[in-house]
Amino acid sequence: MPPPASLDTLFRPRAVAVAGASTNVDSAGQDYVRSLQALGFTGAIYPLNPRATEIAGLPAYPSVEAVPGPVDLVISCLPAGAILELLNQCGRKGVPFLHLFTGRFSETGDAEAAELEQRIEARAKAMGVRILGPNGMGLYHPAAGLGFRPDLPAEGGGVAFLSQSGNNAVEVILRGHARGLRFGKVVNYGNGMDVTPGELLRYLADDPETTVIGAYVEGVPDGRGFFQGLRAAAAKKRVIIHKAGRTRAGAESAASHTAALAGSSDLWSAMLAQAGAIEARSQEQLLDLMVGASLLPAVTGRRVAVAGGGGGRSVQSADACEESSLTVLPLPGEVREKVRAKAPALADWVRNPVDQSILAGSGLSSNGILEMMLAADVYDLAIANVGEDWFFGRPDAEDRMKHACNRLAALAQSCGKPVAVVLGPTETMSPRYRALVDSVRDDLTTRGIAVFYSVERAAWALGRLAPYP
Amino acid sequence: MPPPASLDTLFRPRAVAVAGASTNVDSAGQDYVRSLQALGFTGAIYPLNPRATEIAGLPAYPSVEAVPGPVDLVISCLPAGAILELLNQCGRKGVPFLHLFTGRFSETGDAEAAELEQRIEARAKAMGVRILGPNGMGLYHPAAGLGFRPDLPAEGGGVAFLSQSGNNAVEVILRGHARGLRFGKVVNYGNGMDVTPGELLRYLADDPETTVIGAYVEGVPDGRGFFQGLRAAAAKKRVIIHKAGRTRAGAESAASHTAALAGSSDLWSAMLAQAGAIEARSQEQLLDLMVGASLLPAVTGRRVAVAGGGGGRSVQSADACEESSLTVLPLPGEVREKVRAKAPALADWVRNPVDQSILAGSGLSSNGILEMMLAADVYDLAIANVGEDWFFGRPDAEDRMKHACNRLAALAQSCGKPVAVVLGPTETMSPRYRALVDSVRDDLTTRGIAVFYSVERAAWALGRLAPYP
Repeated sequence: MPPPASLDTLFRPRAVAVAGASTNVDSAGQDYVRSLQALGFTGAIYPLNPRATEIAGLPAYPSVEAVPGPVDLVISCLPAGAILELLNQCGRKGVPFLHLFTGRFSETGDAEAAELEQRIEARAKAMGVRILGPNGMGLYHPAAGLGFRPDLPAEGGGVAFLSQSGNNAVEVILRGHARGLRFGKVVNYGNGMDVTPGELLRYLADDPETTVIGAYVEGVPDGRGFFQGLRAAAAKKRVIIHKAGRTRAGAESAASHTAALAGSSDLWSAMLAQAGAIEARSQEQLLDLMVGASLLPAVTGRRVAVAGGGGGRSVQSADACEESSLTVLPLPGEVREKVRAKAPALADWVRNPVDQSILAGSGLSSNGILEMMLAADVYDLAIANVGEDWFFGRPDAEDRMKHACNRLAALAQSCGKPVAVVLGPTETMSPRYRALVDSVRDDLTTRGIAVFYSVERAAWALGRLAPYP
Repeated sequence: MPPPASLDTLFRPRAVAVAGASTNVDSAGQDYVRSLQALGFTGAIYPLNPRATEIAGLPAYPSVEAVPGPVDLVISCLPAGAILELLNQCGRKGVPFLHLFTGRFSETGDAEAAELEQRIEARAKAMGVRILGPNGMGLYHPAAGLGFRPDLPAEGGGVAFLSQSGNNAVEVILRGHARGLRFGKVVNYGNGMDVTPGELLRYLADDPETTVIGAYVEGVPDGRGFFQGLRAAAAKKRVIIHKAGRTRAGAESAASHTAALAGSSDLWSAMLAQAGAIEARSQEQLLDLMVGASLLPAVTGRRVAVAGGGGGRSVQSADACEESSLTVLPLPGEVREKVRAKAPALADWVRNPVDQSILAGSGLSSNGILEMMLAADVYDLAIANVGEDWFFGRPDAEDRMKHACNRLAALAQSCGKPVAVVLGPTETMSPRYRALVDSVRDDLTTRGIAVFYSVERAAWALGRLAPYP
């Protein structure tokens, strides 16, 4: 038997066949075919269906063995009872990877289903076919044209994400993309029968395409392997782990979801810290940390400059920063003198955080003062509040807010320090304001600016990404 | 001297004059006039400006004494140096309330400015003129046509909000409105020289228009009065307090913002709990609690039914509920038997939280199972995940998602128990999905459904609103 195929082949297969491809547009069996087409997969795509001649415009084949060329990956949407036969065919054809979208195995709690899963595992080993899944949506790798839904973004990047849950992977991809994340290798490995998150982490550690790694885990099939993979990955790259199933109810839910043994929450936190990973406790925290790790320069210290928004926001920003162990240093003398030169009445009043509302009529803006602060070499990082609700109330709101955000983006891109921008969710019922906030956020995120929905979330993420003294 | 006027007059003045009304469209002096017009104030509006004949289509008067009829409220946009003279005029005219939008007093840290503030306070007492502010945007009370920005919602309701910060008040009103909150009496009292938050709380306690009270405070001018007002209000209504300036940096920022002495954070938390108020530590928490308190039936217990979203969401929901001290009870036998009747294979697999992704093809939906759960009289409350990202991927996403949300809304409105709906922020770059999520959320919130941006935030708010056993 040849040695097991490299994961390189999984992520860049020459040809893909979809077993259980369907003519029904509302089915996974058609989604996989259309996803490969939509994401621009350049190899051959073979829909397999003994009762169809054409699916999504492609000729259909009755079985994988009937396919004329080599196949590196078979995606199965067949029911659980058909998998042993499919495995036999893959083995005879020399297919190195079989991805089982197919579920309803051990996660159902049914003993027969669990036994079938074990037989599949043994048969796959014997035939030299590696298994991704079962009970997982598989691969999204836009650089290779792979994906599990036709509406996933075609634009790729360096963020890898491993997810035990399929819907969670979709949410992280779509929401992350709207936040500016650009994904490389994303894997929903489901029950993790053969290709485990530990193996994937070891692979991603050395993968030149991957810059930041996130993962959502409920439990792991192979604790020691996971820890070793995590340590290898975290030694080279930022790794963020969202561990779910921390509670009694969560662990029970995880067992019925992916047959996962969730394990002790405290043990997990200790293990993640020891491996050098950063722990997230919600999808929001995961996304915030991935945005910070992927889009910002490395956070090297805790001295924070804060600007923008009115007085209430400034007080809240100061609280958020200190409660996330960031240090709100006073304005240095050189900045105070620069302010005095333009607006003497403000020089002894303005402070860090910079309250935008006291600057009216002074010729100074919060962005201008933030530029002075970051040039002063006293601060390690910055949080800039857009304060969109203030702009809404002014004439020319669109021009003013876009101008301010452009200046902020230019500062963030030129100053060499992490600048987190705070722009709330689009939380208004006015179509005009909605369009404005959406367009400004899109403009910032597509330029790679790290945007957070609240100053509390920005401060929390920066506080977790910063080194402890 | 007559007794001080009742706050009834402040909230429902017969006529309002704006001192410092301006022909400049980008000024507070014009904003106040246009706000009264936009919000439908039915009394007389008198712009005061000695150098203008007409402002925003209304005849301008040179001074408050030149106004022909009675004036119950003067709003001042004049600079600080002009206030003593304005006060004299108000006193002679018999104006009961003067609102000072005018700032730059003690909050600047300047000794002369602080002294002027004290002289104004003494003069106002002597002349029998009550002062709102200084350094505050004043009143938003849509039922009476009062407001401080023309773009504030005209539709009113029972949610009162007191805010030391003006921009924070604007944010809470606009964002709260998008979440379904409908406001009654909102006051940005700024430095709180005369009309204090304590007095306002005592007033709101007995105000028949007010059902729920929120407040944002940095520090209070009168600690004992605040505590007494808070206790009186919390004895009759839900009161939620966002206390900022909890940290050293936050307290320093508060001093320069509203000259507030922020006080010890621990002392504040203890005081709020003792008074029966609920503490929020961010604007997000404040809004979540006000949404829960205002839009949901009273939360009477902690046994939670959870449904919707995929398996990963279910695990995360279970964690969020338990970590917020809600109890995730298993499905009762009667529900399990109802499931068995329709889908035998699911009866021993499906659980609470209900994983929507395992129901495909069963004829059961997560909403349907949630209906069974709430009918079973085992659960005190529910959290329903919309799972919008799943709908995005299906044909007829619009019809399906709207249908599901309509059913959810009908359940929430008919079951008599609190049902929190989870629909993420509009976090997608697809114009089509954006329009879908925006329209579904608008539809839910305008029907008075409580919508939260994440299951963690929903669980947290419900856990704080529920009684402790």
